[in-house]
Amino acid sequence: MPKPLKVVVVGAGFGGLEAAKILRESPRIEVVMVDRHPYQLFSPLLYQVATGALPEDDIAYPVRAAIPGVTFIRGDVVRVDPQRHTVQLFDGQHIDYDQLILATGSVGTTFGIPGVEENALQMKSIAEARQIKRRLLNTYEDVQEGRLPREALRVVVVGGGPTGVEVSGAVAEMQASMVREYPDIADHASVTLVEAGPRLLPSFSQQSSDHAKEELEQIGVTVKLATAVDRMYERDVHLKSGEILPAGTVVWAAGVAAPDRWADLGATGPARRLIVDDFLRLPDVPDVWVVGDTAAYTDSGTAPLPMVAPVAMQMGRHAARNIIALASGKLMAPFRYVDKGQMATIGRRRAVAETPQGIRLHGTPAWLAWLGLHVVYLAGGRNRVSVLADWAWNYLAWGIGPRRAIVE
Amino acid sequence: MPKPLKVVVVGAGFGGLEAAKILRESPRIEVVMVDRHPYQLFSPLLYQVATGALPEDDIAYPVRAAIPGVTFIRGDVVRVDPQRHTVQLFDGQHIDYDQLILATGSVGTTFGIPGVEENALQMKSIAEARQIKRRLLNTYEDVQEGRLPREALRVVVVGGGPTGVEVSGAVAEMQASMVREYPDIADHASVTLVEAGPRLLPSFSQQSSDHAKEELEQIGVTVKLATAVDRMYERDVHLKSGEILPAGTVVWAAGVAAPDRWADLGATGPARRLIVDDFLRLPDVPDVWVVGDTAAYTDSGTAPLPMVAPVAMQMGRHAARNIIALASGKLMAPFRYVDKGQMATIGRRRAVAETPQGIRLHGTPAWLAWLGLHVVYLAGGRNRVSVLADWAWNYLAWGIGPRRAIVE
Repeated sequence: MPKPLKVVVVGAGFGGLEAAKILRESPRIEVVMVDRHPYQLFSPLLYQVATGALPEDDIAYPVRAAIPGVTFIRGDVVRVDPQRHTVQLFDGQHIDYDQLILATGSVGTTFGIPGVEENALQMKSIAEARQIKRRLLNTYEDVQEGRLPREALRVVVVGGGPTGVEVSGAVAEMQASMVREYPDIADHASVTLVEAGPRLLPSFSQQSSDHAKEELEQIGVTVKLATAVDRMYERDVHLKSGEILPAGTVVWAAGVAAPDRWADLGATGPARRLIVDDFLRLPDVPDVWVVGDTAAYTDSGTAPLPMVAPVAMQMGRHAARNIIALASGKLMAPFRYVDKGQMATIGRRRAVAETPQGIRLHGTPAWLAWLGLHVVYLAGGRNRVSVLADWAWNYLAWGIGPRRAIVE
Repeated sequence: MPKPLKVVVVGAGFGGLEAAKILRESPRIEVVMVDRHPYQLFSPLLYQVATGALPEDDIAYPVRAAIPGVTFIRGDVVRVDPQRHTVQLFDGQHIDYDQLILATGSVGTTFGIPGVEENALQMKSIAEARQIKRRLLNTYEDVQEGRLPREALRVVVVGGGPTGVEVSGAVAEMQASMVREYPDIADHASVTLVEAGPRLLPSFSQQSSDHAKEELEQIGVTVKLATAVDRMYERDVHLKSGEILPAGTVVWAAGVAAPDRWADLGATGPARRLIVDDFLRLPDVPDVWVVGDTAAYTDSGTAPLPMVAPVAMQMGRHAARNIIALASGKLMAPFRYVDKGQMATIGRRRAVAETPQGIRLHGTPAWLAWLGLHVVYLAGGRNRVSVLADWAWNYLAWGIGPRRAIVE
């Protein structure tokens, strides 16, 4: 029997895990998965952890349990050496590969706006979501006890994409539920969503953008379009218009980019994403595959595919199938994205959803679609049960159910 | 209308919260609750957080939501000045009172055994339970990747009371479930329960003690009775017998005592507990009431009442009713504890329970009683729903359900 092909998958996100699940079925292939964390993060629900609607355990799933039989190495890949066919970890360890899949997602980017790095909170990891939750809840404590002014209860969210829309809606609903615990101060809380472009959810139709704005305003979010941030300080956000928004918490959801450590591997497109060929390989380094947010792939001649979970999952599966084809001496297939549509939730029973066929939902039907899809896609059976129970309770007990406690 | 009586309650545990809930019903009384944390901790389930069976959010409930209308101050009371009728917080703030209820629970105590403080993990707070969980789960990662020897998978629990029995049973079941994620190393894991006295659960009948030992051994716990710890090092526990137990994790559940900061307020009984009169006041300082673990009260002429939640709750309610009686010029009543029995869980479908009437349950019936009681007593509706869902899943998916992920 010939030596199996060794495939190293870097990143246990949506793309990497889908690739590993397919690769491990092939008897000719040995799969090694590398990630800094031993869990898969269900990142589309980070905003619910950040606003206390879900416990963090609900959106993390042990990687080893997700891909039994696959060798998992916990480590941070800092360098790829395509000549020697090795990746190097932060601790100095080298792992050799025959084929490499980079599925390393994206990181927040501040566009160099002064003060963002120091004063705004990002929401790309559980640690960051936890930080937002603690800031939001602790601010109520601190204002209640006079350690912070009431203006600290104001929240500014920057970025009108799905993440910004979802987090500002969730913050507004959290603020509404705080009246019972902090009756004296709760009505000083507010949330403002700031978007530099002319509308929210730019990847959606104009109609969905309008619905999203309307529904956010109905639950108390102030939406500021065509409004750019000039700089930030500890206690306020300065807009390019000269207006100053006082804020105790600023959530930065305005932009993401591929990690900058891969920049020397090949040509990059917008947001530092590595340009890949039709088969999802680096054109000049054909044994390095790139999937998900890290990859720039244009299948229709226009902009690269969006940085969302469905793209990453389809790319991960496709790269894996092409590697299996290679190993079996069969023909590889070019990647084509099957767009099943997009959705964003706005609050309890409010969402927008649309498909490329022109189906557009908003309000409760869109929310139900969102709910069903997220439950189906949550990785573990256990997580699914917990999330459903928590959501059911949130939904039934709205206004009387307490927020998660501040546990430090 | 006369000025209301100001009652300060220190400690938002079982005793303090029960007191506050009764006091706030009286129009003649103003209640102020002080605690270091803004949440009530359901401490009897800490061992489930420590072993990854429940997320920490499930056992913490926001204090302000539990007692709406009561002024809550987050702070650490470091001193009581009975002459001036004030308590002093760590930050220097003073709060004056007419009547004071100390409900400050207990802290772990190491009996001065060398190395315990530095090397064993206690389990009195969420932070400590989280630390145990991280140690347990990270040890699997570290052994898997060769950073720790396989002996690190051995766990020693010191103390054969309810906490020690519950945590060692839960660790054994967690270890059994790890086979799927770590098939190469999981069978090197073990748990040893060490108790200095001649039997487990000394407050139970001999029959229940025997059952507990038998059931722990059935799920793989090694039980060592009449075995005292001499000293501890980072990697092993030295027993008085000369035997050395290698251990990557040592949980210290051998003893608790009242906080030492109250020692100058009055006479203390065993475990530094403040001796109280029949009405639950300090004999020499009659406007200071003490309830729960901090109080030593003997209602039958024998040992002080045990440091358990039912005693604290009954004491809290009783002190509150006596204060209301005082405020209304009515007669106070002496405290009598109504013992409804005690129980300890050993594992999935295994527990022991007994009542003072001589009813003794073990195995599944005792476990069902334990389950029902804990669900009824969990503070929040939401927490109850989440805990039930998590337990249902744990129960149904035993052996296939993944552990909580290591989230840092």
